Amino acid sequence: MRVVTLAEIREVLPTIDILPAIEDAFVRYSAGDAVVPPIGELMLEKGEVHIKYGYMRGEPYYVIKIASGFYGNPKIGLPSGDGMMLLFKQETGEPVSVLVDEAYLTDVRTAAAGAVAAKHLAPRHVKRIGIVGAGTQGRLQLEYLSTITQCRDVLVWGRDDELPAYCQDMEGKGFAVEGTTDAEEILRTCNLAVTATPSDTPLLHVSDLRPGTHITAVGSDTPHKQEVDAQILSRADVVVADSIPQCLLRGEIFQALTAGAISQEKVVELGNVIAGHATGRTSDDQITIADLTGVAVQDMAISAAVFEALS
Amino acid sequence: MRVVTLAEIREVLPTIDILPAIEDAFVRYSAGDAVVPPIGELMLEKGEVHIKYGYMRGEPYYVIKIASGFYGNPKIGLPSGDGMMLLFKQETGEPVSVLVDEAYLTDVRTAAAGAVAAKHLAPRHVKRIGIVGAGTQGRLQLEYLSTITQCRDVLVWGRDDELPAYCQDMEGKGFAVEGTTDAEEILRTCNLAVTATPSDTPLLHVSDLRPGTHITAVGSDTPHKQEVDAQILSRADVVVADSIPQCLLRGEIFQALTAGAISQEKVVELGNVIAGHATGRTSDDQITIADLTGVAVQDMAISAAVFEALS
Repeated sequence: MRVVTLAEIREVLPTIDILPAIEDAFVRYSAGDAVVPPIGELMLEKGEVHIKYGYMRGEPYYVIKIASGFYGNPKIGLPSGDGMMLLFKQETGEPVSVLVDEAYLTDVRTAAAGAVAAKHLAPRHVKRIGIVGAGTQGRLQLEYLSTITQCRDVLVWGRDDELPAYCQDMEGKGFAVEGTTDAEEILRTCNLAVTATPSDTPLLHVSDLRPGTHITAVGSDTPHKQEVDAQILSRADVVVADSIPQCLLRGEIFQALTAGAISQEKVVELGNVIAGHATGRTSDDQITIADLTGVAVQDMAISAAVFEALS
Repeated sequence: MRVVTLAEIREVLPTIDILPAIEDAFVRYSAGDAVVPPIGELMLEKGEVHIKYGYMRGEPYYVIKIASGFYGNPKIGLPSGDGMMLLFKQETGEPVSVLVDEAYLTDVRTAAAGAVAAKHLAPRHVKRIGIVGAGTQGRLQLEYLSTITQCRDVLVWGRDDELPAYCQDMEGKGFAVEGTTDAEEILRTCNLAVTATPSDTPLLHVSDLRPGTHITAVGSDTPHKQEVDAQILSRADVVVADSIPQCLLRGEIFQALTAGAISQEKVVELGNVIAGHATGRTSDDQITIADLTGVAVQDMAISAAVFEALS
């Protein structure tokens, strides 16, 4: 069994074309080629742990991903997220590799999924990108979006103390970034918005929503978290889930269903939109929203790609 | 994060007094001190994977245990079981150790639990030990029973091709072992019986059951497996589960409940019997049965003990 360190993962990752791998994972998931049991969840006094696992039929490995969020960690100088991905042989159950990614691959596959969603759902001409959340995921989402849009004009919402570093970091990567502490500005000035916070109250409201907007919500991955007003999903022309079964239990779609703002029939699956089996955006004036709760197939795709690139 | 090999685990294990640790784990589990979510299960074409996880309140770690059974493996020269135990800090989620035990610690904690069950439930004078299943677990159960009974007279049931090696191995450890391919002999001649097979049809039948017998069933850990006739549980004076919630979903008790042979009220929990909060055997003539489906607290106890002994 090979133990792979974060340093090795960071080194090999730029050699991997991750977007097509994630697209393919979503398509095969929606086509029923993946076995993905319900997420395992462990709640602790100071944090939570998710266990996502499964396999793609016909592939060599099954994958178990462990990801933790301990939101008090930064106060003691530790990142809030941690974890690892484990690969085992589908033929025999033998452990193949432990990727000790410290949650980095989860961050990357989440950002890559955001780019995939925007690629297939954003209006053709992205005028301004709005990023809600000035943390690690807010940075990575923007980085990966740069591969699917020419737009470099960015408005970021965050806390006062986070914004200067975010703006500096992302300007260093070729973006023109303005910061705001007023979340209303996002939907008023941007036509591609990404939410990437652990918020449990909506940050984006339907009153600010304009035609021709796409929103990707990646922060809400539990039944409690919510970043987007349920009325936005009601108003949207297209509501996309990364996994319909999972979005019935957690995330923005779960919130909107619970609030009675949408019915389940309105929800289509990202893999089916990519494959052309479901209708995504059909005009630049439409409002679209993608709710990404994180599916084990993304973990399978990225961990197998990393391991194979190292082999 | 420390990666611990099987060789290191085998070396340190004899220095650990594992029975009291397992007893304590059951007591605290029954007292409600443990958080043990439902078992994660992944079914593959050639095998199955169980993910058991949880934590004991007030302890330093939470534990995730991955155990696989690929029953065709021996045909290609591999053991059927494999897996690892992962320790993380309850305070921060940081990974502490990967114990790459290749399922060995699962074998050991299962055998230790068998000894704990027999210690608290077997009749005072064990005349003959019956072991059903001449594999690894059948060996380990007998080894650990030697710490709680003076009896060294053993009858083992197994396949013709397994018995000579089993008898030789266990005679080397000080037992007088006779082999049989007739499972009926077990309950007819032994008053302490342990079943340790992956059978999905009963091997022990009520027609052979005599007063003053204790049976520990450790093989059935899924809804499909069954080693013991449901009528044995009906006839028994005491029916003990390692975990009542888990035994409602899998194992011998699940089978007996499904068959209508017993009612849920009859079942008591091993930790409560150990602690004296539930009534176990009250006379040597009674019939008792313990159904051990394997609880994550055993994995927590043994992995923490091993890691601490190595630290």
